[in-house]
Amino acid sequence: MTTPRSKKPARVIWKPGTMIYPLPAVMVSCGRSPAEYNIITIAWTGILCTDPPLCHISIRPERASYDTIKKSRECVINLTTADLAAATDWCGVRSGRHHNKFKEMRLTPVRASKVRAPLIAEAPINLECRVRKVVPLGSHHMFICEIVAIQADARYVDQKTSALDLARSRPLVYCHGKYYQLGSLIGKFGFSVEKKKRKKET
Amino acid sequence: MTTPRSKKPARVIWKPGTMIYPLPAVMVSCGRSPAEYNIITIAWTGILCTDPPLCHISIRPERASYDTIKKSRECVINLTTADLAAATDWCGVRSGRHHNKFKEMRLTPVRASKVRAPLIAEAPINLECRVRKVVPLGSHHMFICEIVAIQADARYVDQKTSALDLARSRPLVYCHGKYYQLGSLIGKFGFSVEKKKRKKET
Repeated sequence: MTTPRSKKPARVIWKPGTMIYPLPAVMVSCGRSPAEYNIITIAWTGILCTDPPLCHISIRPERASYDTIKKSRECVINLTTADLAAATDWCGVRSGRHHNKFKEMRLTPVRASKVRAPLIAEAPINLECRVRKVVPLGSHHMFICEIVAIQADARYVDQKTSALDLARSRPLVYCHGKYYQLGSLIGKFGFSVEKKKRKKET
Repeated sequence: MTTPRSKKPARVIWKPGTMIYPLPAVMVSCGRSPAEYNIITIAWTGILCTDPPLCHISIRPERASYDTIKKSRECVINLTTADLAAATDWCGVRSGRHHNKFKEMRLTPVRASKVRAPLIAEAPINLECRVRKVVPLGSHHMFICEIVAIQADARYVDQKTSALDLARSRPLVYCHGKYYQLGSLIGKFGFSVEKKKRKKET
């Protein structure tokens, strides 16, 4: 006989809202030439499919990057870190119509391997993306993107095993309007089953 | 004259993969009756649009919850916490075809306000969702969902201001195959601009 772990806690009912957290806050770089290069920070992103590797970024049509990405059908999703927190926030608040975001944030555009959009050298991971479809949904349009190549900062990759230690880059976590560090490790995927096995053995 | 903050670090180029992190690991509850109630853990989720509030969950068609959610066109997305880490992991590894996940994980199904799928009482936030569209993409199908109501554990809501302190629930963070705690606060959305204003004043 199992018993629930808690009494039903009192609940507050709210009207609908976008309350899925924690999320990444990625810097999306775009543009086909240095004059056009721009960066937009996006939390409305995620993985749509493992095989083929598809992801989305959702953008308001009034943002400068919207037209650039829609026209070029390409972008790079750059993961962010605690060191990049201020640049990440700034690129989400300011517009590329009035600022050269690479220069003002002292970020380094680097040629990508498969797309013309530049990657951001200071990011630990860059996902080179081709836009498959733009889906108008309301305030935001969803860009469905195919991930066509990944680049990683070699400092976080084990030279022998090629294993990535992403936590060492100090990933930036966005949660309900605030940026956080990544905290302490709880367990690996599958740890709940491993634990049970061990229990059975003893 | 500005200078880049770093020399271009050496980069490793990989073939495409699903490398966007950190992500939430949500428990999605579904089913129209207690006999059908089930839970699936999903990291391939995110916000698609602010207005209307739309999100997605991506599910492999071979998962038991796939049919349940596709038929009922409803589900509840439950945010997870460090306390729920083992249950979250277990509900992602095990199948509802062989387990009663609510009972075995001692989770409490509670009637939702707008959908028949149950919410999980132990979660700090529950998003009641109606499926708008199922889009086959490959290994995963994307369920585009409208968020029709939100419930919050009253312990994390300020009684006077209705402000939510989500960090106090100790949100679970999923990053490259590992679960983490949320770490220390870096700043609020917009902090990079606030900082500049303050600098100008002094």
